[in-house]
Amino acid sequence: MSARSNAYKKAGVDIDAGERLISRIAARVHETFGPNVLGDLRGFANAYSLGGQAGLFSSDYSDPVLVACTDGVGTKLKLAFETNIHDTVGQDLVAMSVNDLITCGAEPLFFLDYFATGKLDVGVAEKVIVGIASACKAARCALIGGETAEMPDMYSKGEYDLAGFAVGVVERDKMIDGAKIEPGDVVIGMLSSGLHSNGYSLVRKLLLKGRGRMDLAEPVPELGEALGDCLLRPTCIYADAVRTVCSRYKVKEIVKALAHITGGGLIENIPRILPEACAVEIDTALWDRPPVFGLLQEKGKITDDEMYRVFNMGIGMVLVCPDYNAQAILRTLRSKRASTPSRIIGRVVKGKRSVKIKHASA
Amino acid sequence: MSARSNAYKKAGVDIDAGERLISRIAARVHETFGPNVLGDLRGFANAYSLGGQAGLFSSDYSDPVLVACTDGVGTKLKLAFETNIHDTVGQDLVAMSVNDLITCGAEPLFFLDYFATGKLDVGVAEKVIVGIASACKAARCALIGGETAEMPDMYSKGEYDLAGFAVGVVERDKMIDGAKIEPGDVVIGMLSSGLHSNGYSLVRKLLLKGRGRMDLAEPVPELGEALGDCLLRPTCIYADAVRTVCSRYKVKEIVKALAHITGGGLIENIPRILPEACAVEIDTALWDRPPVFGLLQEKGKITDDEMYRVFNMGIGMVLVCPDYNAQAILRTLRSKRASTPSRIIGRVVKGKRSVKIKHASA
Repeated sequence: MSARSNAYKKAGVDIDAGERLISRIAARVHETFGPNVLGDLRGFANAYSLGGQAGLFSSDYSDPVLVACTDGVGTKLKLAFETNIHDTVGQDLVAMSVNDLITCGAEPLFFLDYFATGKLDVGVAEKVIVGIASACKAARCALIGGETAEMPDMYSKGEYDLAGFAVGVVERDKMIDGAKIEPGDVVIGMLSSGLHSNGYSLVRKLLLKGRGRMDLAEPVPELGEALGDCLLRPTCIYADAVRTVCSRYKVKEIVKALAHITGGGLIENIPRILPEACAVEIDTALWDRPPVFGLLQEKGKITDDEMYRVFNMGIGMVLVCPDYNAQAILRTLRSKRASTPSRIIGRVVKGKRSVKIKHASA
Repeated sequence: MSARSNAYKKAGVDIDAGERLISRIAARVHETFGPNVLGDLRGFANAYSLGGQAGLFSSDYSDPVLVACTDGVGTKLKLAFETNIHDTVGQDLVAMSVNDLITCGAEPLFFLDYFATGKLDVGVAEKVIVGIASACKAARCALIGGETAEMPDMYSKGEYDLAGFAVGVVERDKMIDGAKIEPGDVVIGMLSSGLHSNGYSLVRKLLLKGRGRMDLAEPVPELGEALGDCLLRPTCIYADAVRTVCSRYKVKEIVKALAHITGGGLIENIPRILPEACAVEIDTALWDRPPVFGLLQEKGKITDDEMYRVFNMGIGMVLVCPDYNAQAILRTLRSKRASTPSRIIGRVVKGKRSVKIKHASA
């Protein structure tokens, strides 16, 4: 449309920029769709067919339960602003919600994003949203909608916030909830790519503020790379790995629980899936921690206990299974299809819904 | 848990505050649940049963389509900060997404919210989220999840942003999409409560900045109330009204289209539901505009055309139906159950997917 609101534009809201953005991202967004998405981006609402007649689903659901999660990327975004690298935080956004979604055994269906900024920079927003679309494709969920909000006076120049929203589906009697966990079960850890998307307010305080401030562009010997590259590395999406494992054990309850390791670390996230009379013992000698955690601990003189409460310490997703199946699951996770390096990191014992960390030096 | 992360707290993220917030809002959130919500707030993901076995739905779906929407409140939030009134913006948040959702005939199922702030003020967040929960109850959708993000350095002191996500369901062959609209059909407008949640960057520029700055606490004679009360009045949720009308016409396609009037006004939102060969003529003499629109137009010397492109001008939702059914639908909308004041505001004519506004003075 030609006649646009001038007064509105002068007040800081540029509707044309929003439409330019939509035309730039449309093709990449459509790539995520698949046959279940109905309609286009023109309507008010975005539709996803549950496929009652066409049987489009990978499984048929007789008693479907919808599962929904929402999350943001937190102050990791500040690093995107500072380095002017905007094509990785989209994966962080999708990972944070989708990794939560799959913990109950749900298959991701679709995703929506909320992008809010003070003044819309179409180039930056395009990079962010193309990143979101690529990650949705990797997680096999359709990016069926989103909102780009231009809010003058709310965000500092060059800054934006992101929120993501994922919906999946799971058959009711196949929901994974940890109820069958018992002493003797094995705790498998899927390795993280680094910090993922938690603890960045502390990371920034320790590494990027005050007197000892480090340079994001500078290579750091302990890390073997520039600090910015290390800190911006995107969060792993474990959807394909979990799907591959779960699809091998359709009948028996072999995958007893999954926990996404986010803020709160192993210590606070594992108890969320434990039965009341179970605890978990983790042996930190069983996997290597990425060097960034050592750097942070040293800089902040942080105790081991606190490190394991704030950061993932190298483990992004935890899976609990019977001892008997642990080796087969490890092989599946490490297979080419799942390509997720994983280790046995501990065991379930009798206890009171808690996590005991045995530190390598202890 | 007793041992909390001190370093993390000193870096500006207070996990305890987040848990205090959850305990304060839990009862109000649970009130929204109904029998389809599974589990509690402890898990990673939030589950909503589609009720295959129990038949809990108001209708049974043989070919269900999920519909999802996301939106924020925009810079209307700034008025909440300036007046320190935080219990109304939750309704705005729910309304923006749910009103989009129902335009295709979907029944709202559940909602999730994203609340982001620099430093979590538990009292403020509680007011906001209780407002969201109340609005979800009114829209009959369950508030099954949310994220409270504490992001130091991202938001100014006392400020926050909100994003909302709504999911609904509709039977595939009952989706409302405007395809059956034809010349002669009637355009019914459901009255808005005022500005709703669009155009606030312009509103703030015209009324609250610069030399002619008005006082939010001051009563304004033209408005018959204080400016702040007028500007913060929450967005109407039309879910019950639309549900009541649609439930009366289950078989025949009487409700041909619905359009949520947001940014872009009547001029840009109505074409989104029109077939290519149809246009709409609106006669502004057929309803009264709330006085705030006159105040804004005068202050900004804005043309009529632009006013109708930025603001809802008193119409929050548009419904298109055959002439034959218009009076019955109006009676239903005005009934005690729907309690939504509505007017016939125009007609469908031959044209090219556009809206012509006949101004009262023309």
